[in-house]
Amino acid sequence: MDNLLNQIKWDKDGLVCAIAQDAQTKRILMVAYMNAEALIQTATTGYAHYYSRSRQKQWQKGEESGHVQKVQSLHLDCDGDAVLMLIEQVGGISCHTGRESCFYREWQQGEWQIQDPVLKNEHEIYQSKN
Amino acid sequence: MDNLLNQIKWDKDGLVCAIAQDAQTKRILMVAYMNAEALIQTATTGYAHYYSRSRQKQWQKGEESGHVQKVQSLHLDCDGDAVLMLIEQVGGISCHTGRESCFYREWQQGEWQIQDPVLKNEHEIYQSKN
Repeated sequence: MDNLLNQIKWDKDGLVCAIAQDAQTKRILMVAYMNAEALIQTATTGYAHYYSRSRQKQWQKGEESGHVQKVQSLHLDCDGDAVLMLIEQVGGISCHTGRESCFYREWQQGEWQIQDPVLKNEHEIYQSKN
Repeated sequence: MDNLLNQIKWDKDGLVCAIAQDAQTKRILMVAYMNAEALIQTATTGYAHYYSRSRQKQWQKGEESGHVQKVQSLHLDCDGDAVLMLIEQVGGISCHTGRESCFYREWQQGEWQIQDPVLKNEHEIYQSKN
């Protein structure tokens, strides 16, 4: 995995920014961070893994909700400090708020306005794996 | 600009992650960072501004190359630590290497393989404003 890791410019916490983009709609679904282990797991399993800065642990997206992300392709930017995944979002929900994308707010008329509906409430998401 | 700024979860350096996505093709062009001033300038002028961590200064994308980014819409994620801009990339080149996108490398067969051609060489980009 040397080839995978040695092009990455890790930040001072040993993390790299990771973007998940829907491979079909091209919508940006979420942005999070990966440590080396999460990047290796992502590349080897084909499912998106991240590192949670708040919980200080590695996690597989969807491990509790079932909303896993199948990685179709993995990309790296010019200075190596961001990776991009084109993914298939199982269940169609990326955001912990139950929305398709975490980017559900848009700056309009002087406010961050909510644009997207909640597709599933948070209670439901974390009760079942569907 | 209180409404713009008070939803942002700034990192310990006072920055927020900022993604530029081509409004037409939906391709991710680049990822960089904004400080409060860069976000205000972006929202008020309609052109993408960033904060360079290496040069420790705010800059307007394209100020030297002419490859400015016209912001069509500005979005914020659920936890407020990433903004997304749908943009029109003037000149069609986002990357300082002269490529359309900074994400020109793809992980394939155990290597980060370069997928995109250089459209303009670096010397040319920074010599003229075209």
